[in-house]
Amino acid sequence: MDSHDLSPYIDHIQDFPQPGIGFKDISPLLQSSAAMAKAKAQLLEIITPINADVIAGLDARGFLFSTLIADALGVGSVMIRKAGKLPGAVEERSYSLEYGSGTLAVQKARDLRGKRVVIMDDLLATGGTLGCAENLITQVGGEVAAAVVIIELKFLEGAAQLSCPLHALVSYDE
Amino acid sequence: MDSHDLSPYIDHIQDFPQPGIGFKDISPLLQSSAAMAKAKAQLLEIITPINADVIAGLDARGFLFSTLIADALGVGSVMIRKAGKLPGAVEERSYSLEYGSGTLAVQKARDLRGKRVVIMDDLLATGGTLGCAENLITQVGGEVAAAVVIIELKFLEGAAQLSCPLHALVSYDE
Repeated sequence: MDSHDLSPYIDHIQDFPQPGIGFKDISPLLQSSAAMAKAKAQLLEIITPINADVIAGLDARGFLFSTLIADALGVGSVMIRKAGKLPGAVEERSYSLEYGSGTLAVQKARDLRGKRVVIMDDLLATGGTLGCAENLITQVGGEVAAAVVIIELKFLEGAAQLSCPLHALVSYDE
Repeated sequence: MDSHDLSPYIDHIQDFPQPGIGFKDISPLLQSSAAMAKAKAQLLEIITPINADVIAGLDARGFLFSTLIADALGVGSVMIRKAGKLPGAVEERSYSLEYGSGTLAVQKARDLRGKRVVIMDDLLATGGTLGCAENLITQVGGEVAAAVVIIELKFLEGAAQLSCPLHALVSYDE
């Protein structure tokens, strides 16, 4: 394998979570410490120059990367969660995605006004979730410097839903 | 503050997610890189001597710590998720918890047979979820060496639901 290529650590599961959907699964990547170290190094190469103030992780698989990268950069992280999951006063924003729809929330107490934020998730599909997260952070006064994912399903053109630059470690054209 | 005390970074939100429940929220901890560095150091002090083969993170807030600690130890991590969230063949186990019930799953392909596993979550309440995760990992042939959480609500006596040792960074007696 190409030493930079993480695709051998991504499983493809057909017809999940619905018939006709091909699911890309990062579980083999998580289970390999060597592959994760490589992914972390690649993520840091992308994110370090951005000089982010905070890393926002998307519920749930974004959390696998947000604290890991925030810790390596010496910055804090925040959780962007589905409606009803975060306690206290929240700001919310609704969205539609590849299979379903939902509402994302961030706590008002996190006060992202004027902060440079990098949003992380495991995967960009149609861009509904990440686009909503970007809008939500903008809504609370944050500046979304970039969205960073492990996997981009390029053929779904989700990057078009984002105003910020998108970075992906592995891209699929079909 | 005591330099080892993380409790200033834990919010208490009354009546969430249900009336009568006091919710402990790690969001301020996540947002402080200094507090997170301290939490990480304390977690590593506990977990390093265990010589775990793999860190299992509980959906969703356990993911905030499982990859962070797995990376620092140079081991892999696995996701323990709610039913229907993991693609492919899974092993499942049901449980009841402080407010509600559910089913946890782990992918069969992760093959935890003979592996020393540390389970991580943000919080131990009545122990339903962590106890179920321990049973699930045992069911698939893994050895649960410890459960490690940021917060233990000691008055709910959740540790009694576990066969393995429990470690917590912050404990509440009421």
